Amino acid sequence: MRKVFYISDGTAITAEVLGHAVLSQFDVKFEQITIPFVESLEKAQKVAYKINDINDDDEIPLVFHSIIDTTIRSIIEEANCLPHDFLNSFVAPLEKQLGLKAKPKTHRTHGIANEAYNARIDAINYSLDNDDGISLKHLDKAEIILVGVSRCGKTPSSLYLAMQFGIATANYPFIGQDMDSLVLPEQLKAYKHKIFGLTIDPNRLHDIRNQRRANSQYSSLRNCRLEVKEVEMLYRKERIPYIDTTKLSVEEITAKIIEITGHKRKMF
Amino acid sequence: MRKVFYISDGTAITAEVLGHAVLSQFDVKFEQITIPFVESLEKAQKVAYKINDINDDDEIPLVFHSIIDTTIRSIIEEANCLPHDFLNSFVAPLEKQLGLKAKPKTHRTHGIANEAYNARIDAINYSLDNDDGISLKHLDKAEIILVGVSRCGKTPSSLYLAMQFGIATANYPFIGQDMDSLVLPEQLKAYKHKIFGLTIDPNRLHDIRNQRRANSQYSSLRNCRLEVKEVEMLYRKERIPYIDTTKLSVEEITAKIIEITGHKRKMF
Repeated sequence: MRKVFYISDGTAITAEVLGHAVLSQFDVKFEQITIPFVESLEKAQKVAYKINDINDDDEIPLVFHSIIDTTIRSIIEEANCLPHDFLNSFVAPLEKQLGLKAKPKTHRTHGIANEAYNARIDAINYSLDNDDGISLKHLDKAEIILVGVSRCGKTPSSLYLAMQFGIATANYPFIGQDMDSLVLPEQLKAYKHKIFGLTIDPNRLHDIRNQRRANSQYSSLRNCRLEVKEVEMLYRKERIPYIDTTKLSVEEITAKIIEITGHKRKMF
Repeated sequence: MRKVFYISDGTAITAEVLGHAVLSQFDVKFEQITIPFVESLEKAQKVAYKINDINDDDEIPLVFHSIIDTTIRSIIEEANCLPHDFLNSFVAPLEKQLGLKAKPKTHRTHGIANEAYNARIDAINYSLDNDDGISLKHLDKAEIILVGVSRCGKTPSSLYLAMQFGIATANYPFIGQDMDSLVLPEQLKAYKHKIFGLTIDPNRLHDIRNQRRANSQYSSLRNCRLEVKEVEMLYRKERIPYIDTTKLSVEEITAKIIEITGHKRKMF
């Protein structure tokens, strides 16, 4: 397997994520090695030795990097590899387009930029404290309130919105005993403009719940069908925007929520 | 302010994150607009109209995109913009280097690839259920156990490791009453090889705790100093690897944990 290095003087997250996106366009497997925080000439030199050690002329390793320091960058690029510079490939053309010189600064992407950073930690704490309807006292502070049946994706989506977008997200489950005459709970009514619904295919829900509580009333296909039907009827009646999470990853669910609600990402 | 569009036929997360990294090299502000899920010719056409509507010759909008479908891509690139193609800029040179033709497939980056995806949801649930020492019964299933004083970054780091790396992470707090004669709790001893310590500057800890419980014994600088000193002594005595989180973002903390422990990212 050809080796691929993701290298950065920061976390290497950008190099990993874009590198993986680029490589997934090819129908081959790669051995992936991530080396973050290459911040000193010594560490750069060690990484270069590691690359040169591979020494297989048929399978020269690929290097995807986003290194800001020019000296460190050249040490890596001069190693025996096929380098791809994710950052600077775009900086030079942009300088021309903008008529500006870049002012390279490390650690801006995934660093601790104070205001946004505190908002994020607050959002994470908020989402944890207001997960699964634990507390309905602080819904005034929610930016988004996710609702849906148990196990349709509310909790991972809330945490992702908080962690990656800095958006304080509460979530509230519609549970079995509410289903007979499902209405929007009194405490949620005042915040209807913040409510976003999730739904899911009953068969998928049945599978997921069966992994938790096999052969229970809770996980039975009949009950899953009933709950999903009731909840979707409520969404339509109350004109609550909603999406089906069945075939979506957490990234896709949250990107759609952001697109539909018009919220803005508070951090990158 | 010059407008910047992040456009994709997927979530647009890759375009946003790399675009933001590239733009942060310039000392100017941009108006940033994200348009995900441009999956149909109709939607692409609408986006192109939106771009053309800006019609300000001095400030032609920038477009950062990672669009896989070639027809959709040309519709966007032919709009009145300065396009930057994050994905294909690297695919063509890679085809040469690898001697392979790319097989473009949408939605691979942030999609729901089943095995890894289930591992991720399991890891998130595990980390929530084993947050803050709530339960010590399932430590055998932890891949990493984060320890440290209250408010040093354990919870966000555990959730990030679960969400972004798919690594089941428990966390355990050392609390005030343990400090007099701090030892590694009996239940953790069997899992010492999984333990990773976090520490923090006592002044920063004091600030953070004061926001929660002002002027308390818990938040007093004297107590913060004592707790941090005791915990760091324990780390050294027990040879527990640890890092100082004071100036680090969650991404930086977790990237360092991954680097030091040698764990592998299970998903991208």
